[in-house]
Amino acid sequence: MGNMYAAQVRVRYADTDAMGIAYHANYLVWFEVGRTEFMRARGVEYAKLEAAGFMLPVVEAQIHWRHPARYDDLIDIETSLAELTPARIRFAYRIRRHEDGQLLCEGSTLHGFVTREGKPVAMPRRAPELYRRLEALVGASV
Amino acid sequence: MGNMYAAQVRVRYADTDAMGIAYHANYLVWFEVGRTEFMRARGVEYAKLEAAGFMLPVVEAQIHWRHPARYDDLIDIETSLAELTPARIRFAYRIRRHEDGQLLCEGSTLHGFVTREGKPVAMPRRAPELYRRLEALVGASV
Amino acid sequence: MGNMYAAQVRVRYADTDAMGIAYHANYLVWFEVGRTEFMRARGVEYAKLEAAGFMLPVVEAQIHWRHPARYDDLIDIETSLAELTPARIRFAYRIRRHEDGQLLCEGSTLHGFVTREGKPVAMPRRAPELYRRLEALVGASV
Amino acid sequence: MGNMYAAQVRVRYADTDAMGIAYHANYLVWFEVGRTEFMRARGVEYAKLEAAGFMLPVVEAQIHWRHPARYDDLIDIETSLAELTPARIRFAYRIRRHEDGQLLCEGSTLHGFVTREGKPVAMPRRAPELYRRLEALVGASV
Repeated sequence: MGNMYAAQVRVRYADTDAMGIAYHANYLVWFEVGRTEFMRARGVEYAKLEAAGFMLPVVEAQIHWRHPARYDDLIDIETSLAELTPARIRFAYRIRRHEDGQLLCEGSTLHGFVTREGKPVAMPRRAPELYRRLEALVGASV
Repeated sequence: MGNMYAAQVRVRYADTDAMGIAYHANYLVWFEVGRTEFMRARGVEYAKLEAAGFMLPVVEAQIHWRHPARYDDLIDIETSLAELTPARIRFAYRIRRHEDGQLLCEGSTLHGFVTREGKPVAMPRRAPELYRRLEALVGASV
Repeated sequence: MGNMYAAQVRVRYADTDAMGIAYHANYLVWFEVGRTEFMRARGVEYAKLEAAGFMLPVVEAQIHWRHPARYDDLIDIETSLAELTPARIRFAYRIRRHEDGQLLCEGSTLHGFVTREGKPVAMPRRAPELYRRLEALVGASV
Repeated sequence: MGNMYAAQVRVRYADTDAMGIAYHANYLVWFEVGRTEFMRARGVEYAKLEAAGFMLPVVEAQIHWRHPARYDDLIDIETSLAELTPARIRFAYRIRRHEDGQLLCEGSTLHGFVTREGKPVAMPRRAPELYRRLEALVGASV
């Protein structure tokens, strides 16, 4: 995945379930951590996007769980910007156990560009500079 | 606890942890369910409070866990309004396993009356009618 | 969806996020509530499955978010058993706002049959009676 | 608080609520992160405690929320071991906004030493070496 760098989280007790593994819904939260840190590392902080009046609600997700994460595992979240249109942005993720690189989960999330009121917006018209910076990241990975 | 009625929740897999029991932080969420349903049952919907410009952030909590709740347990959340001042409101909770009434957890939360911007407000001056309705509930329990 | 009946949850403050809507990962938890209640209504309690030595970890999910759910919304979770093989089971979900039936989210989850140690098991060989009961539910919906 | 060092977390979108602040129950999760990293830093990994047959369920908590944490805030979790008896251990916490040191939350959690089956155990008899190491940490802070 090109120039490798990944956000990291450690599995908390709060994340586990009675099967003794990380509850599956947490991976969507870790995807959030992944794309947030991906954007921060590239100079496009999500908090600043919001300050500029944009939000990126999730409209679609695909997730494949390969192996369970367990309590106290350190995990790497690899994120890439898979697709960008004036209306939408897709991120792809690979979550690995840090210790041995074992792939735990793969997935993607599709987000729409909307105003604070939830109206779709054409990103390039409203924020051409920001859009160009996002375009430059397509295919790149943190 | 006077006229008995309690909100109910069922322990979800998502609520459990690797000890095989409900993760302790969930009880604060169940307290939220308890006070929300307590207020709804008494005609003071929390959503309407917010619509009227008030918020009740939690400023203090005490929690005693007595026995663990387990996956799929049906639990009863007994809520009472323990204390009311112009600036603050305290709820008290008892969480029981529905099947046998076993006490699982006791606690209380203290909330401040604030505006949407987080400024403290004197409830009786800003919403005298609502304050009187809350006063009538002190000591009562759902 | 045939004989209609749906599990219900109410959106908690805990479920909301700073966009003022239900955080997207909660829908996976509501899917869990949906399939649990679907199975309970059909006499196949998930807790008993586990007691019999089986677990059904999620291996895949697809989710489409259509409209946001908001604080205090009552929502209906419609669940159906979409697919069953000796090794896997797929549930499909539609989440609607109870008040007006507005579709909020659609999705599916694929689960493997595994032992408590995580080994795949052929359901029909290990639990023929239970498998037949599940087969009878394919296409049905709660 | 002596030799200062603190675990850090960043407030996720998942942690926020419709008030635009971190939902209060998350602080109990951050307390968990605090004591886990406190113990790891001192060579007493919680995961190893569990491997040795002990668990430390929370039996009591007191929490005071002082100021809200917001999305994307970096926060420091200062943890100390406040009290140790053969049967129980208490941790104290201070959560601060990293940027300016603003105190956001204070609290403590009391835990019992129990076996995997939930029976109380006298720590010094069952694990004298480990108990001595914990004793040496009373009053220290990470």
